[in-house]
Amino acid sequence: MASSLHENYPPELTSEEEQYLLANVKDWSIAHGLAVRPAPSFVGPSQDPAGVLATTAPTTIFPSLFSRSCFEEGLAIQKAYNELYSAIARDEEWLKGIVEELIDIDDFVAKLWQTHLAVKKEGYVQELSLGLFRSDYMVHTDPSNASTSPGLKQVEFNTIASSFGGLSSQVSALHRHLLSIDAYPSSTTSVIKADALRQSKSASSLAQGLAAAHKAYGTSRSGHPLCVLFVVQDPERNVFDQRHLEYALLEENGVRSFRLPFQQTLTHTTLDADKKLLYTPPNSPSKTYEVTTIYYRAGYSPDDYPNAEDWDSRLHLEKSRAIKCPSLLTHLAGCKKVQQVLATPHSPHLKRFLPNDEVASRVLATFAPIYPLDQSEAGKVAQKLTQNPESASRYVLKPQREGGGNNIYRRAIPSFLEKLPETHWPAYILMEMIEPPPLKNAILRNGELQRGGVICELGVYGVCLWKEGGEIVENFEAGYLLRTKGDQSEEGGVAAGFGAVDSCCLVDS
Amino acid sequence: MASSLHENYPPELTSEEEQYLLANVKDWSIAHGLAVRPAPSFVGPSQDPAGVLATTAPTTIFPSLFSRSCFEEGLAIQKAYNELYSAIARDEEWLKGIVEELIDIDDFVAKLWQTHLAVKKEGYVQELSLGLFRSDYMVHTDPSNASTSPGLKQVEFNTIASSFGGLSSQVSALHRHLLSIDAYPSSTTSVIKADALRQSKSASSLAQGLAAAHKAYGTSRSGHPLCVLFVVQDPERNVFDQRHLEYALLEENGVRSFRLPFQQTLTHTTLDADKKLLYTPPNSPSKTYEVTTIYYRAGYSPDDYPNAEDWDSRLHLEKSRAIKCPSLLTHLAGCKKVQQVLATPHSPHLKRFLPNDEVASRVLATFAPIYPLDQSEAGKVAQKLTQNPESASRYVLKPQREGGGNNIYRRAIPSFLEKLPETHWPAYILMEMIEPPPLKNAILRNGELQRGGVICELGVYGVCLWKEGGEIVENFEAGYLLRTKGDQSEEGGVAAGFGAVDSCCLVDS
Repeated sequence: MASSLHENYPPELTSEEEQYLLANVKDWSIAHGLAVRPAPSFVGPSQDPAGVLATTAPTTIFPSLFSRSCFEEGLAIQKAYNELYSAIARDEEWLKGIVEELIDIDDFVAKLWQTHLAVKKEGYVQELSLGLFRSDYMVHTDPSNASTSPGLKQVEFNTIASSFGGLSSQVSALHRHLLSIDAYPSSTTSVIKADALRQSKSASSLAQGLAAAHKAYGTSRSGHPLCVLFVVQDPERNVFDQRHLEYALLEENGVRSFRLPFQQTLTHTTLDADKKLLYTPPNSPSKTYEVTTIYYRAGYSPDDYPNAEDWDSRLHLEKSRAIKCPSLLTHLAGCKKVQQVLATPHSPHLKRFLPNDEVASRVLATFAPIYPLDQSEAGKVAQKLTQNPESASRYVLKPQREGGGNNIYRRAIPSFLEKLPETHWPAYILMEMIEPPPLKNAILRNGELQRGGVICELGVYGVCLWKEGGEIVENFEAGYLLRTKGDQSEEGGVAAGFGAVDSCCLVDS
Repeated sequence: MASSLHENYPPELTSEEEQYLLANVKDWSIAHGLAVRPAPSFVGPSQDPAGVLATTAPTTIFPSLFSRSCFEEGLAIQKAYNELYSAIARDEEWLKGIVEELIDIDDFVAKLWQTHLAVKKEGYVQELSLGLFRSDYMVHTDPSNASTSPGLKQVEFNTIASSFGGLSSQVSALHRHLLSIDAYPSSTTSVIKADALRQSKSASSLAQGLAAAHKAYGTSRSGHPLCVLFVVQDPERNVFDQRHLEYALLEENGVRSFRLPFQQTLTHTTLDADKKLLYTPPNSPSKTYEVTTIYYRAGYSPDDYPNAEDWDSRLHLEKSRAIKCPSLLTHLAGCKKVQQVLATPHSPHLKRFLPNDEVASRVLATFAPIYPLDQSEAGKVAQKLTQNPESASRYVLKPQREGGGNNIYRRAIPSFLEKLPETHWPAYILMEMIEPPPLKNAILRNGELQRGGVICELGVYGVCLWKEGGEIVENFEAGYLLRTKGDQSEEGGVAAGFGAVDSCCLVDS
């Protein structure tokens, strides 16, 4: 990727160009559901108690430049990643080893494991598991050697509630639309062109994954009609992202689904003697549905479990015959500790799950080195690296827990660890910083256009449906997400940390 | 239509049923662009200066009951109406007679006519005219004879800026979606069923009409690329309605279009020596387009012409070689005076334009008797009818001008006319009131659900493209609109006069 291209992209806009572009973004987005419910800071609940207002989802107005070879590699290896994580989720013994290292320091992991053991005691009754995964990457350019090709490095692997599959399809269509109406200045025509813009089929593909599980569940055993259950947070500002999957599930696959707030699980569902999960919609108490598939868009964060009863809800759902997306073990397979042990230099684990060497080496190439903060050999390397700001400057410290948002970066690491009791250190992993290419873009958020340096994360969706015994029923790549946020350095530009949905404009690197 | 059905429809909802229905209406509508920009009373401009917020368009949450035979007749005769109004628009001499009666009392009609004469003097250079029409009806039940079948009676015929074709397609899809997810109580399944809900293809069909004109214009004479120009009001809260046509025009027909605020016409368009209309988008001053078709979504109301320069703009557009939707004469053909002379009892005019007796009699059957307030024989009948509140009680007095909203109803007519100088009477027509069946529905507007008695207006869209010489190039029915508003009688219910978009649930009458 020529750096002059990076420097001049996106182009400066005249005020007329900006007005035309923004008017089209604002109207197209609402006309096509590229939307969110407004934040309380934008529209207070007293102003709109019924919640009818919506606004354009935070969106880049240009597609971001992305290395074509990295993009293609990310999509190409998704099936291997699906295979890898489904194999991990089937390997209870191995996972037990991981969990045991975390159980004293991470209550959430401990509770998930206890819930698994409780279900296991009664006996699992569903051999199928569904994963709607998303593998997140950044492009890495070696800072000490600018002439090497950029590579794709994994940030994290999501095994539960992988979001933005609904909006991602819409934002890539938005950018294509903007191109088709010449909303991009003519100076960009050699860059933003039809064959460089990648359309994401994520909404359709993820719905197809849910439909595959629904079908694999088989016919109704209760005589009641079948449905998929979206277990959701309430309220949910990102509801349209989820609704697009629901609509694709119904319109493209003919499969009914319902949204059930996680907190209302025990009120509206029951388990019969045969552990079928029966859902009675509050709006039609005389009609009961048999749930084929539980799609968790809640329950992934400790915040979803403020009361003990919430763990009862999770246990109740997990005991059932419904296919879980994901199962408890699949959920646990997504914890960062797993990523860390796979990516620890000289780790033997990857081979265990991906016996094909060629496949394993392609996956391995996407790992950034990760170190545990424990007493192992690799842990000792980590302790050296974090001893002073200079040596820590190419690393990031991440909590093992899911959810993100509490990373400690580079030179701040040593002082952070100093204040943390050493017994808590193993709750974190140390990861080599990925050094993304310098990129710029402009993000429309709450009507404000913010320009500046950005960091892009490519998420590749994957669908995998497998049986406990090892048979993989479905395995396919399911579109992509580009999520773009302000970089750390740019003052007064795009707000660091707040993401926007984006799409890829591929460039040869 | 059994009256017990009317009385029990729509059904009462439990609070759970209502919650489910509303949650689905609110999310589906935004996900599919069934939306408007919020009114300033809901979201002030200082709160959202960039205009990114949107809200669900005022929508009925149930499809309204509508007589199947009336619905089918309305759609069936649209081609005859297209033929009728295209014939009127081609008959300048006849229209001149109409205009002459209005010219002293209606400045707007006078200005339109003067503009026509000014263009004519230079010579019209485009023989094609496009009409995107909408014929509006209500179902009429004879109050003195309840056993007769309901009939369709025309309220008005729109020849310019026929709106809601974009949202109408969406609301019929919304009601179908609500049915498919069992959002309607099971007590309604014998009424709200798939084969009773009529999907409106208006967005697609109207776009197809614009595309037909665009194609019929022929190849570019200037060497510049071709486009359609939407001449619009600014700001426009109902922008998504128009955008849906624009998107269908581009995606289904491959035709580029631009939105141009009417007030900016002279700034951004020029006429070349050959009277080609050239549009230079402000966002790309180096790129010029040749306009094939001018689609007016502005210019239909005197309010659009606050300054003399606005009439210069209209003249400038009308002089051009672009196909107008509609032409000046077509615009004039839509004035209520035309409807009145056609619908005056024993009028000879209909035959003039629809020589086929069978076709003419079907159209005639949809006219409610209309009387002029002048010195003619029919005018004398009108004067008698408006002499006292009792005799006036089955009539409505309507201004001849386009735009609506200033009607005087029933017993209020005599005192209104008493205060009006008799020289101004001919600016009004007297029309027999259409007596719609008693209907109820619930309208979601600004997050509030308003229940009560409603009046439904069926609008049938028609596309007609013709040549001055009489050849009709395209003529088709183009979907429908059901617009529903609160009736006058219901206190505390649906606000009278404010319309919502709706769709038809057909019932046998």
